[in-house]
Amino acid sequence: MSTAPSPAPAARAGSTPSPTRSVPAARTLADPDTPFAVVDAHRTRRNIARLRDRADRLKVALRPHVKTAKSPDAAALLHDGSPGPVTVSTLAEAEAFADAGHRDITYAVGIEPRKLPRAIALSRRGVTLRVLLDSTEQAAFVAAAARESGTVLPTLIEIDCDGHRGGLRPDAPGLTGIGRVLHEAGCLDGVLTHAGESYFRHTAEEQREAARNERDAAVAAAGRLRAAGLPVATVSVGSTPTAHAADDLTGVTELRAGNYVFFDLVMAGLGVCDLDDLALSVVVTVIGHRPEYGWIVTDGGWMAMSRDRGTAAQAQDQGYGLVADLSGALIPGLVMTAASQEHGTLTARDGAVLPDLPIGTRLRVLPNHACATAAQHHGYHVIDGSRGEVAAPAVESYWPRVSGW
Amino acid sequence: MSTAPSPAPAARAGSTPSPTRSVPAARTLADPDTPFAVVDAHRTRRNIARLRDRADRLKVALRPHVKTAKSPDAAALLHDGSPGPVTVSTLAEAEAFADAGHRDITYAVGIEPRKLPRAIALSRRGVTLRVLLDSTEQAAFVAAAARESGTVLPTLIEIDCDGHRGGLRPDAPGLTGIGRVLHEAGCLDGVLTHAGESYFRHTAEEQREAARNERDAAVAAAGRLRAAGLPVATVSVGSTPTAHAADDLTGVTELRAGNYVFFDLVMAGLGVCDLDDLALSVVVTVIGHRPEYGWIVTDGGWMAMSRDRGTAAQAQDQGYGLVADLSGALIPGLVMTAASQEHGTLTARDGAVLPDLPIGTRLRVLPNHACATAAQHHGYHVIDGSRGEVAAPAVESYWPRVSGW
Repeated sequence: MSTAPSPAPAARAGSTPSPTRSVPAARTLADPDTPFAVVDAHRTRRNIARLRDRADRLKVALRPHVKTAKSPDAAALLHDGSPGPVTVSTLAEAEAFADAGHRDITYAVGIEPRKLPRAIALSRRGVTLRVLLDSTEQAAFVAAAARESGTVLPTLIEIDCDGHRGGLRPDAPGLTGIGRVLHEAGCLDGVLTHAGESYFRHTAEEQREAARNERDAAVAAAGRLRAAGLPVATVSVGSTPTAHAADDLTGVTELRAGNYVFFDLVMAGLGVCDLDDLALSVVVTVIGHRPEYGWIVTDGGWMAMSRDRGTAAQAQDQGYGLVADLSGALIPGLVMTAASQEHGTLTARDGAVLPDLPIGTRLRVLPNHACATAAQHHGYHVIDGSRGEVAAPAVESYWPRVSGW
Repeated sequence: MSTAPSPAPAARAGSTPSPTRSVPAARTLADPDTPFAVVDAHRTRRNIARLRDRADRLKVALRPHVKTAKSPDAAALLHDGSPGPVTVSTLAEAEAFADAGHRDITYAVGIEPRKLPRAIALSRRGVTLRVLLDSTEQAAFVAAAARESGTVLPTLIEIDCDGHRGGLRPDAPGLTGIGRVLHEAGCLDGVLTHAGESYFRHTAEEQREAARNERDAAVAAAGRLRAAGLPVATVSVGSTPTAHAADDLTGVTELRAGNYVFFDLVMAGLGVCDLDDLALSVVVTVIGHRPEYGWIVTDGGWMAMSRDRGTAAQAQDQGYGLVADLSGALIPGLVMTAASQEHGTLTARDGAVLPDLPIGTRLRVLPNHACATAAQHHGYHVIDGSRGEVAAPAVESYWPRVSGW
């Protein structure tokens, strides 16, 4: 964990600069000016242990996606303090995690050919950086870049298991041709898929089914490549719902998931976690009352929470978030129902009485979507929830976030 | 405009750090790795001149809200290069704009009493920082802080003109009492209101009506304070729609608006601007094709665009944004209809044929809500659209953004 300021990263030509890394001084959650993001490290550790145990039972390696926390400090909890395998969503993350000692990184967004020089630079630093693609065009670019640079660029072919964003269907005619182009350049590493549909599967059985479908798609694609005489080392699957639902991952070599480190209201709505597993919240302060409308107004708007309203599509719409007191205890019926840039509006539902919260009262709002809410902040004030519910939890450390591309 | 790196701001105890300020090197929009934000300074200047002319005709001072661009470089265009009056949404903005030479700043979010030391610190630096409030509790905190610190804290009373977020109704019984508490501490400056409802008024006549209502509420509240023997120097109104619709601002001393500097699809949907007034866009790159679904996949997801879907509530839902080529020319019928964290999905509508855009093609996506999209980026690559539509517009400069609180 960061306990002292570290220098600002140097600007890189053609990219946006990253935030400075410094550690604001705060004794408790009563100290920093609001709004700010808080992580309960106790819940984070518990969430991490739960999925690690599952992966061990399923006899599959775990490659957590760090796109949610985007924090090398948080990632230190993933593999008992050592920099283990991770998945990233941007090259800025890959570079920051390489700086933090990680040497086994999968960049799980289809590669834009102009970004290959940054991938090669990481490779030259001793990082095994896997890239992803789903077209012959991209494969030709990767093969050419590997040959010209004399580096190995281990590459995964993206498989589409359920009709979300990128990938080839497992039975796509072009699959083996892409595999061959990569193999001839020494770059074929395997296949990767992501069950995007699992976020819309609302029962445990539907999520198990999504996990089986995800596994079947990846294993089938790997089988077709092997049948064509091509070596497949990695068969990678994962999403937070399917990682927690899978009952048999035969043929799969690694499991990815990211959101589970913090969880959020969308995941609780899907039944993947309980509300008391949510490790990320945003501390806000009451700045006004509108009794004529039944509103409490806070200084945390969408800039602090993000515009994400993932639960709007679920059975229980949680607005912009559920509201707890500063200790973390949920206040029954209190919901953040509206947001402008720097204002949040809290209202009571389900017949609850609007609580009496004077100007200056600090509250913690649990977000719809941890990935989106975390991205609105430069870092996290970290508390240890295992100490029980105290009025103003002590701040143990500050974890800066990686941002930009 | 920034042309050389400036030092990273020092970390302040209790706050999150701001990003470093450095200037990525880029010759044209073909150079930086995608996604990244672009501002057309020509359109920005034109938008600024349009509202300045309106304010001049209405004989009212203009105090632009800098919460959209959050850039002292962009603000330099507001008042012909000199640091004129501005409105801010966070104290981090106030401090950054003070660093850039601004001495007349209104912080237009109800004051959280614990933030008063930062307001006093700005005052001691010679900044006239107006704060906002709408309760006797807050007024008592401000009066006590002003007396104890020996500083003047000019304060505006927030007036609610249409039932959005904070403020007192103009006829609220408590209004004059708050005014008296402030006046006795030498802090009463005036009243401020914001027509939040104007974003939901879809005709020019409805917007004019919203502007009249906003003016009437502010002027009525000022009149009540004056009738009670209290001095009112500032009568402040504004929102981007009402600022562009107002036909008579008698009794008003200043007009605020922020979004108009960039405009966006929500404002175009309201008829406040045309599509070719939109000054902010996000450059993304094609990374895949899914002909079976009619999709083009890009490397710009909600992390680059934000989760804001403001046009979903308008007659024409624009998805996550309209798509232009790198020169800025809109591609008819092409819309960004879905987003995951780092993937965007483009589809054709209105019978348009999906264009043939090879892997590596750069595009510009026009956002729903400039304030939210801009907040996803550390700064802007700035182009000059007056040079006409060129394939890869030249990058004139880089404007860093202020972020955090």
